[in-house]
Amino acid sequence: MNLVDIYLQLKGDVQYIEKELEKAIDSRLADLYQSSTHLLKAGGKRMRPVFVLLGGKLGNYDLEKLKYVAVPLELIHMATLVHDDVIDDSDKRRGADTVRAKWDNRVAMYTGDYIFARALSMASELPNPQIHQILSRAMVDLCIGEIEQIRDLNNWEQGLRVYLRRIKRKTALLFAISGQLGAVAAGATPDIVRRMYLYGYNVGMAFQITDDILDFTATEKQLGKPVGSDLRQGNITLPALYSAKVGPEKETFQAWIRQGSIDAHLDEAISLIRKSEGIAYANRLAARYIERACSVLQPLPQSKTKKSLLGIADFICGRKF
Amino acid sequence: MNLVDIYLQLKGDVQYIEKELEKAIDSRLADLYQSSTHLLKAGGKRMRPVFVLLGGKLGNYDLEKLKYVAVPLELIHMATLVHDDVIDDSDKRRGADTVRAKWDNRVAMYTGDYIFARALSMASELPNPQIHQILSRAMVDLCIGEIEQIRDLNNWEQGLRVYLRRIKRKTALLFAISGQLGAVAAGATPDIVRRMYLYGYNVGMAFQITDDILDFTATEKQLGKPVGSDLRQGNITLPALYSAKVGPEKETFQAWIRQGSIDAHLDEAISLIRKSEGIAYANRLAARYIERACSVLQPLPQSKTKKSLLGIADFICGRKF
Repeated sequence: MNLVDIYLQLKGDVQYIEKELEKAIDSRLADLYQSSTHLLKAGGKRMRPVFVLLGGKLGNYDLEKLKYVAVPLELIHMATLVHDDVIDDSDKRRGADTVRAKWDNRVAMYTGDYIFARALSMASELPNPQIHQILSRAMVDLCIGEIEQIRDLNNWEQGLRVYLRRIKRKTALLFAISGQLGAVAAGATPDIVRRMYLYGYNVGMAFQITDDILDFTATEKQLGKPVGSDLRQGNITLPALYSAKVGPEKETFQAWIRQGSIDAHLDEAISLIRKSEGIAYANRLAARYIERACSVLQPLPQSKTKKSLLGIADFICGRKF
Repeated sequence: MNLVDIYLQLKGDVQYIEKELEKAIDSRLADLYQSSTHLLKAGGKRMRPVFVLLGGKLGNYDLEKLKYVAVPLELIHMATLVHDDVIDDSDKRRGADTVRAKWDNRVAMYTGDYIFARALSMASELPNPQIHQILSRAMVDLCIGEIEQIRDLNNWEQGLRVYLRRIKRKTALLFAISGQLGAVAAGATPDIVRRMYLYGYNVGMAFQITDDILDFTATEKQLGKPVGSDLRQGNITLPALYSAKVGPEKETFQAWIRQGSIDAHLDEAISLIRKSEGIAYANRLAARYIERACSVLQPLPQSKTKKSLLGIADFICGRKF
């Protein structure tokens, strides 16, 4: 089962969520900060809503209820993207009219805040405090993940555990609670709720590790940005950590790190990492997370939903960009 | 009854909330963005928590419950201050090391997000969906207010209604829901809940109008920033609107507006507004809101709490900076 089939199966419902997403964002505000509308119109895989819907299928499926978690989860994801833009915008506009740069950044920041608030407000329509708790706690962790990523910039001392904890907070948690909240909102059994959480967590870890691999192995065209952008920004991901600590190229990296000259050898470093065993190592780790995601689902009876979840897991591991 | 007496009466409980505020913010993160700790340590009037506690006194007062709304409300207020700092920081650091400027802004933004999320997460500990709803809806309006303020910058066409709606969202709503949520959390009657909302709303309107007056009439020393900072930033408040539309000086203002030369006449404009009838007009309007706040409380039986609420209203109207 490929991703297209999975989406086709949920097509009507995903389109409904899409419309609700548009409704959720006040158009008067979207006019102000065009990139939030742009972001919305640009689409995206809407993976978090899809996880919600699939989680819902394992209980009493009710789209009218599920939308109150599916839309918020996508909104939270969008809000983080809007906030990620803030600083980038300010760089791109360097040298441009100050007032304009200031305006855009402020508006982008408050638009992100607004989208966050809309997400929580919409979720609060469901009279289930557990849902609000899960959602707002995940948001706390998400923010900690973002802050940790900044703190860990250019820190070559970090170990694998620091990396894994960071991508858990930054990415995997939102995947985890998507399926979980879908199941909770549909009144699924605690066992299913727990399995959806673990499934999403493992898929999310694999998703981010794959993202971090592709940043080195995909082409600039596929990525839509220069190869090795993470490293260029000081974000040290698994393949880079492997080269610096485990691979035969580690002596070269350690020398650069000691001299503080990584920046001067960026292209060389990226090319070493591309060819290193770290890529295969990271791929194996991603595959292991996918295996765990699938084995979590094993006890569930056969169903279209189970097949879809397994299909998504497969896709995540195999994606090329 | 003056403000000191009111605070003395709640002293122990306000101190407890203060400790809970410190606990709510992860110290590892506060280290990263020092101004959030700074903000916390700098104190402040903690008016929102005080409103919560007083609202709670009108029901079954339970500090252990009330802290789950008192702390979040102050956190939300703090988060908006942290986000307000983001752009200012970027200006102050103009010309400084880029990486450092970038770092600080990003960290400040995510720290603000983190504080927002912590606020909602803490409130979600109370098993009362109504509380989550009121809180998250107010956050939505707060963000819209911030965005409106940016949209309305330098817009001299705006009328009194636009100004009033903006300060309602930006300031009065958070005051309104503070007392309201205190009453809700304490299980007060719907009538009291409604009155606390209206009281807070009216006090909040008066508070912001007074703030906007003081920006013209206080001294630079009292304000801690140049007189007329609002106007200098393009934020057109009630006294400025009065001068441009109603006062005898309106011809001068209209000419500047037509020529687009307000910026060139800023000091002159500020001095005209300072001496204008707009100040007295704005003071009368603030006083009217305070009257309404007090009359909302009138039907309540005499109590220390009622006396405190009336005392706070009095203080708001009379404050000098």
